[in-house]
Amino acid sequence: MNPANSVLLTDLYQLTMLQGYHDAGMEETAVFEFFVRRLRPGRGFLLAAGLEQSLGFLERLHFTPEELEWLASTQRFSPAFLASLENLRFSGDVHAMPEGTVFFPDEPILRVTAPIAEAQLVETRLINLLHLETMIASKAARSVLMAPDRLLVDFGLRRAHGAEAGLLAARASYIAGFAGTSNVQAGRLFGMPLYGTMAHSFVQAHDDEALAFEHFAHAQPDNVVLLIDTWDTEAAARKVVALAPKLTRAGIRIKGVRIDSGDLAGHARRVRAILDAGGLEHVIIFASGDLDEYALRDMLAAGAPVDGFGVGTRMDTSSDLPYLDCAYKLQEYAGRARRKRSEGKATWPGRKQVYRRHDADGRMAGDMVTLETDSQPGEPLLIPVMRGGRRVAPAPSFAEVRRHAAENLARLPQALRRLEAFDYQVEIAPALHDLVAEVDRSTFSCRSV
Amino acid sequence: MNPANSVLLTDLYQLTMLQGYHDAGMEETAVFEFFVRRLRPGRGFLLAAGLEQSLGFLERLHFTPEELEWLASTQRFSPAFLASLENLRFSGDVHAMPEGTVFFPDEPILRVTAPIAEAQLVETRLINLLHLETMIASKAARSVLMAPDRLLVDFGLRRAHGAEAGLLAARASYIAGFAGTSNVQAGRLFGMPLYGTMAHSFVQAHDDEALAFEHFAHAQPDNVVLLIDTWDTEAAARKVVALAPKLTRAGIRIKGVRIDSGDLAGHARRVRAILDAGGLEHVIIFASGDLDEYALRDMLAAGAPVDGFGVGTRMDTSSDLPYLDCAYKLQEYAGRARRKRSEGKATWPGRKQVYRRHDADGRMAGDMVTLETDSQPGEPLLIPVMRGGRRVAPAPSFAEVRRHAAENLARLPQALRRLEAFDYQVEIAPALHDLVAEVDRSTFSCRSV
Repeated sequence: MNPANSVLLTDLYQLTMLQGYHDAGMEETAVFEFFVRRLRPGRGFLLAAGLEQSLGFLERLHFTPEELEWLASTQRFSPAFLASLENLRFSGDVHAMPEGTVFFPDEPILRVTAPIAEAQLVETRLINLLHLETMIASKAARSVLMAPDRLLVDFGLRRAHGAEAGLLAARASYIAGFAGTSNVQAGRLFGMPLYGTMAHSFVQAHDDEALAFEHFAHAQPDNVVLLIDTWDTEAAARKVVALAPKLTRAGIRIKGVRIDSGDLAGHARRVRAILDAGGLEHVIIFASGDLDEYALRDMLAAGAPVDGFGVGTRMDTSSDLPYLDCAYKLQEYAGRARRKRSEGKATWPGRKQVYRRHDADGRMAGDMVTLETDSQPGEPLLIPVMRGGRRVAPAPSFAEVRRHAAENLARLPQALRRLEAFDYQVEIAPALHDLVAEVDRSTFSCRSV
Repeated sequence: MNPANSVLLTDLYQLTMLQGYHDAGMEETAVFEFFVRRLRPGRGFLLAAGLEQSLGFLERLHFTPEELEWLASTQRFSPAFLASLENLRFSGDVHAMPEGTVFFPDEPILRVTAPIAEAQLVETRLINLLHLETMIASKAARSVLMAPDRLLVDFGLRRAHGAEAGLLAARASYIAGFAGTSNVQAGRLFGMPLYGTMAHSFVQAHDDEALAFEHFAHAQPDNVVLLIDTWDTEAAARKVVALAPKLTRAGIRIKGVRIDSGDLAGHARRVRAILDAGGLEHVIIFASGDLDEYALRDMLAAGAPVDGFGVGTRMDTSSDLPYLDCAYKLQEYAGRARRKRSEGKATWPGRKQVYRRHDADGRMAGDMVTLETDSQPGEPLLIPVMRGGRRVAPAPSFAEVRRHAAENLARLPQALRRLEAFDYQVEIAPALHDLVAEVDRSTFSCRSV
């Protein structure tokens, strides 16, 4: 049993609220939207990801008899309420931005319209999935923008926060434009390209570094990328040159070398010179170790001769922004728009749509957030993806999602392509301001404040 | 199938190296150790966690026929090598610090001694598990130290990095001294106490806030904690007071109120006054929203009348330190100590032990890292936990692990109990310095540098 797939992977309060809705006979349609409240200064945009896993979760939503039995054993819930969960399935509608869509704070990327119990119950896991993949895709896109013509590989599994974080980080970074991952299980589950060479331990376990290289080359003749920084990087590069003719005679071609520590740019330059002088112009240099989009930008700006990068921990943990200020909020219940006004966390009520305008060059020129019913110029970004609990179309292929992301990234205005990005215009439509005034009036008039 | 339990949840290079070891006939015993290289300035200590999941992983280690078939389909590996994986199990020894042990950089907390293929293969997932739980336990311990006599509850599932991160963060924070979690699946899997009340959506879905409170109280009569910040916190507190007599007549007692936004300390003071004036002195105040150990320290220092805290996103993502600089490194192979000397990442070779001295008050007074064979004064922290692939003892109970952690935290010297902590002495024994010199001599004499 995969504990990640259980409906019990949720906050207790979802279940206690469901008991409340049940007892109060509240079964009307609710509308919830997922959005990011704000971004850290300097972060210019987000890249939507996680929809595929979210829809899979909604499709599978149910309580098993064992789960219901366990819930009963906690003595927190009434038998009548637990009985009502036996046949609970997700029967609602979902509108969403396709994975790979660039978006901004205040813009919903997913809307759930369903009986309130269903729409409420799924909150925790929907946030959990959309938050993680969107955060990683948004982070990965920054490396893609900084090194668009280099080989980028996800190396982050070991320090990702658990198994699912590693798997979904591999997926999210691939959507953003990475070439693949070192994560074998991600390769198998998602059909992603895999990359991998050797670790320092392989070299250390040999008494002789050159022998380690030779052993590896014979064991992986189609994949000879040699790690050269275990002891002395330049000395190891010279050993690679010395070994090459012997391998050539055995029909084996060295594909690349990897440098994982020290001044990567400096080592890369010296290693490039050694390889070139030794007739190994075709051998690529792959760099890894504490990399992120800033390191990529700086190394490439300095002209470091690096052909590929393994980007690991800092991407898979989104280390400079390890969480997004995101929420999944009730916007409508029983046909009436709803709003919370908590300090610093007030929400825009109602069912919303986002319209995007482009300039003559096809670059994004400004977004408008408005009510679904209020048509505006531009392209509507939220589309129906699930109706009555079923997908309206098969899941797009990885290739399609990657293409959509690449097209979106290509449309980013210049000001958003830098690492310190600012100033994309997201307007809140007059229709929405009007609704806020109306909701506040009606909420406060019918409550006894 | 739980993809987290698959042996394929690893980096490709583990498998390519295994092919290399196989082809080169390298089957000797290897010793790897897991340790943290360094801590960010201001972070004083770490709390070991994740051993239980790590041992479970080692016990289950195997390739299924489907996995081997899939590996064959990648055409990266030889049939003879893949055949050798059919019966691969973990047959080695493990020494480790028990979960809940305080430790410091340079100190191994887990040592694997096994045939090199086994010891190598498990690297990625062992790091993945030990890193996550240790990072979260270490973070959670800081909140425990700041608010030792308050109710602390993990609220972080939604923004934890995926399902496993949420589950293991709940577990790790419980080890560190939290009272429980909102994560239902963690409660079920680990037998942890569960906490949960209502969200803003529950209030918003009602036309009247007081009616929402009443509905909830009737649905969860033993668990009446009311969320009062959806619109106006103090007004809601007055509604709680007004509602109390009616609930009392129905035999229902209000247990607490929760505040989730704004100036939590200020609201708590005003709400406390309203509740007390209304005869609700017994009603506790629970605070949540963007909390971490700093916020807890500041609120309690300011005398905020808060009885419990929901600590979520910032703990479950360890947001100020979202990854540890940790490693699992080869320290010995075929009876010879090994070492890498990569810049900034050099390692201490050999099989090591950590000895801890205590002062007259029982407080930690200094650690010594040395070779296993070099006995030193103090308590040895690494103990045998697995021999020949089997645990030497049943897993300790949660209660035992929590007690061990509490005892360890109680022994922290005063300088390490503050949020900006410094200066615990970890010495590297002369025996280890001697071994480094010897390893460097022999490594460099037998390689052709």
